[in-house]
Amino acid sequence: MQNFTFQNRTKIVFGKGTEGQVGEEVKEYSDKILFLYGGGSIKEYGIYDRVMDSLDEAGVGVVELGGVQPNPRLSLVKEGIEVCRENGIEFILAVGGGSVIDTAKAISIGVPYEGDVWDFYSTDKAVEESLPIGTVLTIPAAGSESSPGSVITEEEGGYKRDVVDNELRPEFSILNPEFTYTLPKYQTASGAADIMAHVMERYFTHEEHVGLTDRLCEGTLRTVIANAPIALEEPENYEARAEITWASTVAHNDLLGTGRVEDWASHKIEHELSGMYDVTHGAGLAIVFPAWMEYVYEEDVERFAQFATRVWGKETNYYSLERTAREGIKALKDFFHDIGLLTSLEELDVEISDDDLREMANKCTEDGPVGNFVKLGADEVLEIYKIAR
Amino acid sequence: MQNFTFQNRTKIVFGKGTEGQVGEEVKEYSDKILFLYGGGSIKEYGIYDRVMDSLDEAGVGVVELGGVQPNPRLSLVKEGIEVCRENGIEFILAVGGGSVIDTAKAISIGVPYEGDVWDFYSTDKAVEESLPIGTVLTIPAAGSESSPGSVITEEEGGYKRDVVDNELRPEFSILNPEFTYTLPKYQTASGAADIMAHVMERYFTHEEHVGLTDRLCEGTLRTVIANAPIALEEPENYEARAEITWASTVAHNDLLGTGRVEDWASHKIEHELSGMYDVTHGAGLAIVFPAWMEYVYEEDVERFAQFATRVWGKETNYYSLERTAREGIKALKDFFHDIGLLTSLEELDVEISDDDLREMANKCTEDGPVGNFVKLGADEVLEIYKIAR
Repeated sequence: MQNFTFQNRTKIVFGKGTEGQVGEEVKEYSDKILFLYGGGSIKEYGIYDRVMDSLDEAGVGVVELGGVQPNPRLSLVKEGIEVCRENGIEFILAVGGGSVIDTAKAISIGVPYEGDVWDFYSTDKAVEESLPIGTVLTIPAAGSESSPGSVITEEEGGYKRDVVDNELRPEFSILNPEFTYTLPKYQTASGAADIMAHVMERYFTHEEHVGLTDRLCEGTLRTVIANAPIALEEPENYEARAEITWASTVAHNDLLGTGRVEDWASHKIEHELSGMYDVTHGAGLAIVFPAWMEYVYEEDVERFAQFATRVWGKETNYYSLERTAREGIKALKDFFHDIGLLTSLEELDVEISDDDLREMANKCTEDGPVGNFVKLGADEVLEIYKIAR
Repeated sequence: MQNFTFQNRTKIVFGKGTEGQVGEEVKEYSDKILFLYGGGSIKEYGIYDRVMDSLDEAGVGVVELGGVQPNPRLSLVKEGIEVCRENGIEFILAVGGGSVIDTAKAISIGVPYEGDVWDFYSTDKAVEESLPIGTVLTIPAAGSESSPGSVITEEEGGYKRDVVDNELRPEFSILNPEFTYTLPKYQTASGAADIMAHVMERYFTHEEHVGLTDRLCEGTLRTVIANAPIALEEPENYEARAEITWASTVAHNDLLGTGRVEDWASHKIEHELSGMYDVTHGAGLAIVFPAWMEYVYEEDVERFAQFATRVWGKETNYYSLERTAREGIKALKDFFHDIGLLTSLEELDVEISDDDLREMANKCTEDGPVGNFVKLGADEVLEIYKIAR
């Protein structure tokens, strides 16, 4: 087990009707906030009104900014920074999924910074100051509700980059699983893939002695595997929605990564895809992750065999751990397919040429090899894109 | 799943040599601290010197108070409060196990309080203010290094009572598993029982839909079950010590209890035992918990069958979940026995009469029935003591 530091201060308020507490939570920080959201769905489903009522009741003044898109854009971040500065805003409330929360985080570090906020994403510029933020989560997937990360797309160059700093953890996050009843099936499934990917990026390590976190990872994966099909079949099954929602936070609150070197190659490989083609991040991961596994599993057959047995219930073939390992990868791919996700680039509704793949592989490795389980240069990443095709 | 609020701000600094960071961590809060510890073992094993060196280097002034005993006493808490007041102390560093940390917590709420600190333990007096505390953990067991609880014994009446409040979570805890190499076998085993008990108090609930936390609980239990025997056989096996140390925190940082009604009857039943006879808390739990299980398991045979299968690897007998359930309880009892713990009151080196048992049962239920899985009055608690005999 490697040495580590772990601290996650985010207050989680979880359950039915908890959006009614948003006013009093916000009030601890400020009387005047930026209310950030995405498209019209929070209005359509009454979430907007319920949050506004609670803010009103607490006497919190609101400046609104909507229009955050999936794979959130730098341009809107910059707009948000201006709005905050012009209005003397000191707290940001993000109501939505990962894109809205990541945008709020970007704005929160951009407001007190004199330079270009993209510096934090494109260089190793450290975060020194930020506005506090809170969230009301509507899509369980990104884990941004308690994570220290934010991913933004610089739309002109098609660069999707992240910043990770403890300063970016929300002060509080309100999670009402009922808000996820109306998610389109595709988004429920993509969310499940994203949650699982967050666990797997941590699970695949060469650290042998991480028994506790291995088991916590396996338990979180099994929970998503058990509940995603239920949520797809019965969208208003509260218990299944609650399991997935809590799993989305646990998967990415950093506990599961303690004591180990994490990988994150698949995320970087996927970011090029969703940066260029505007694929849903989780759906992109469902294509990339199994391909990454096929390319790297021989480097640590034992770990992949453990994954197959403990996560997927495959019998261990003691005479061929390799065969067991492959069964686990197949089980993952089959699962993604069963919950309605695409599992190859060809099925995507876009044209991707060999040159495009090469360009993505180059961009992905611009700052050096990606991943830790196996360090992957441009050629290796290209191979993975080809397997994914 | 029940609604819940979860927040645990404690910063965990984990691994080899991390005690060298104590000075800089403390320095964030104060230049002059109370250094609280127990007996001579931290001096004997060099922990005292290493912590002092780090504090020195950071220019932190220290007032010392040693002598905390297991099942920590109210009298020393009061002494600590006086020492803090006389010296204008604003931060407490606890170096030791649960008893030292719980004493530090008691002092931390006693210093700013004008009344008798025992009020917090004996009435529902709420905590409003406290000094910040930090810990350097030497015994993985109580989980007090990130928990909101403190248990103190009022030695005159033999009352062992607790207070639970988020305010009591340490600001930071430094966990170096190497510090546990020199623990006597009995303490390693008792610690394992204590950690397992913290998980089981949460695991046994009638909430059906707590799949994620069930799995996190099971993983934590399996980690202790796998590693305690290794640590007993090879006291300097870093990896086994590290797994147990991290499990002690995870077991009791409140994550595993989210969404469910917890039980805590066994702890209360045990507290009478260690309050009266100065039994090690974990060792007492190894006697009480299986007896509690035998008394209550028929109330929810499914949950006990799940425990047997998922935690102990017992085959499910689909035609008799009851038989499976009993196998799980037996497995727990056998495990405690195998790691060298006593599993009946009779084996304790004390005389306990029928009248004593009755008195303990009465005291235990003075404020009403204990537990939630089954609510237990004095007669039921007496039955459990009799099973434990």
